[in-house]
Amino acid sequence: MRAIVIEKPGGHGVLVWTEVPDPVPGPGEVVVDVAAAAVNRGDLGQRQGFYPPPPGEPPYPGLECSGVVTAVGPGVADWHVGLPVCALLGGGGYAEKVAVRTGQLLPVPRGVPLVQAAALPEAACTVWFNAVDIAGLRRGRTLLVHGGGSGIGTFAIQLDKALGATVVATARQAKHERLYALGADLVVDHSAADFVAATLEHTGGRGADVVLDIVGADYLARNIAALAPDGHIATIGLQGGLRAELDFLAPAAKSGSISATGLRTRAHDEKARIVRGVTAEVWPLVETGAIRPVVDRTFPMAEAAEAHRVMETGDHVGKLVLVP
Amino acid sequence: MRAIVIEKPGGHGVLVWTEVPDPVPGPGEVVVDVAAAAVNRGDLGQRQGFYPPPPGEPPYPGLECSGVVTAVGPGVADWHVGLPVCALLGGGGYAEKVAVRTGQLLPVPRGVPLVQAAALPEAACTVWFNAVDIAGLRRGRTLLVHGGGSGIGTFAIQLDKALGATVVATARQAKHERLYALGADLVVDHSAADFVAATLEHTGGRGADVVLDIVGADYLARNIAALAPDGHIATIGLQGGLRAELDFLAPAAKSGSISATGLRTRAHDEKARIVRGVTAEVWPLVETGAIRPVVDRTFPMAEAAEAHRVMETGDHVGKLVLVP
Repeated sequence: MRAIVIEKPGGHGVLVWTEVPDPVPGPGEVVVDVAAAAVNRGDLGQRQGFYPPPPGEPPYPGLECSGVVTAVGPGVADWHVGLPVCALLGGGGYAEKVAVRTGQLLPVPRGVPLVQAAALPEAACTVWFNAVDIAGLRRGRTLLVHGGGSGIGTFAIQLDKALGATVVATARQAKHERLYALGADLVVDHSAADFVAATLEHTGGRGADVVLDIVGADYLARNIAALAPDGHIATIGLQGGLRAELDFLAPAAKSGSISATGLRTRAHDEKARIVRGVTAEVWPLVETGAIRPVVDRTFPMAEAAEAHRVMETGDHVGKLVLVP
Repeated sequence: MRAIVIEKPGGHGVLVWTEVPDPVPGPGEVVVDVAAAAVNRGDLGQRQGFYPPPPGEPPYPGLECSGVVTAVGPGVADWHVGLPVCALLGGGGYAEKVAVRTGQLLPVPRGVPLVQAAALPEAACTVWFNAVDIAGLRRGRTLLVHGGGSGIGTFAIQLDKALGATVVATARQAKHERLYALGADLVVDHSAADFVAATLEHTGGRGADVVLDIVGADYLARNIAALAPDGHIATIGLQGGLRAELDFLAPAAKSGSISATGLRTRAHDEKARIVRGVTAEVWPLVETGAIRPVVDRTFPMAEAAEAHRVMETGDHVGKLVLVP
């Protein structure tokens, strides 16, 4: 098969579409013929050498894909050759084939085209795990999501509204119309306005019950200021720095909590638990059309370098998808 | 009735045992004739003017008590005059009588003398809520508890062992024998040894799944260093400063989380949920003798000032209890 190989850590040019050995399904694994793989920010870190795959995962980038099962390893009972699936991956989505543990497979939601389904697993698992499972987002609560135009952001806005909750998103002005169309209750241009004041005003002074944050340090104090009593800040990215002063009195006054988590390095049984939660609670919302994959554009997989370049500009809304 | 009145914020001398109006039970409340009230560190803050009671709570100190129901307000069905109870209070335990919402009442566990029962509610609710409900302490996991000799610490050690978990406690050397007798697996003298290294060594390098922390800022970096993957730091006190630098990469590498919570200002229905959890999950462990109230000594309530002075020395193990 062919896969995107990172020749050495560096810029876009290090991504090379080339021949590599086919994967063989181990016990409890299937091989998926990849129909599409979506680009995640973690892939950019992996390309630059900062975010290596966990031990035992393929060396190629790609944290999610869709495709069709073409081989089944020993001990696999519930998945068979010919099934269309999508998958949460520890790596290896940028390829024609990938071996996947069955605990990380999801069915393709009814009504979703196979290529579009590649845009769902990582955002669905990340948003459900952080906003719902950890932070308790539900009907009547308010979510503040930073990077509202990202794959995570566009998914979070839709999931929030499907749950009957309120969502405030931050995003550049050019993306506001798209995010309102997805259901956002309020979109704040963080370069021009104070998202803390906007969130407090929109919630009658109460604040956001859940903050889904891709920024980290630079937003810590402001996220706490925007937090409702018993609120939770789920940090899933660190685009805005690694270190910040934490003033404990601020969260303690609200009984607030902060987490910083990642999916990629989690134990397989924990990933499987999250995948089961998403399949049970989120996929029905996709099948009714309440949540749709948001694909900004697709690229031939051989042009993964161009997709990375576009992601770095940050001008896209939703997911960039690669097709082998 | 008589109660301890804080004449003005200040030292021990501002606590005066004097005549005040009797409480009247409102809808959903009972009046408890106080058999005993335990001293909490929050009471010291209230005496100094830093930690006022929430609106609607009595102005006298006292976050927990035991006693007998002597009056029942409108709409109370399940509690009647003559019942021995203990209670989680928003304030007012330092008195001969206190009005309590029924959601904050607990039965006196079988086999526990009424005066000793005053030492249970605040520690049981705080430890269960933080270590079990928020942080998921259970069989096979490891707890690191700071201030192992405190009311919270002595309760946490016993609850941890009753759950089949492992517990590392920090405490002054003079308290180690008592804490080992309560079941601690390892006690570290934090003034002489590195609790991070000791915790990692005791857990084969894995770290503590749950850190129950009364220190706050001064321990933040070390608590993160001592944390196991997916671990949680529950901050319940800020004796060691309010501000610290948070390095997000450290918790993110472990998918860790941090909370800073308090019980006193929580909504009544949330307090009631915690009280139900404690009654269902913790009281049976008290009734088998696996957890016992640890009372350092009792004082006449009129000598509350002396009890505060002893708590400030930090030489006690377990609870200081006041008897009207």
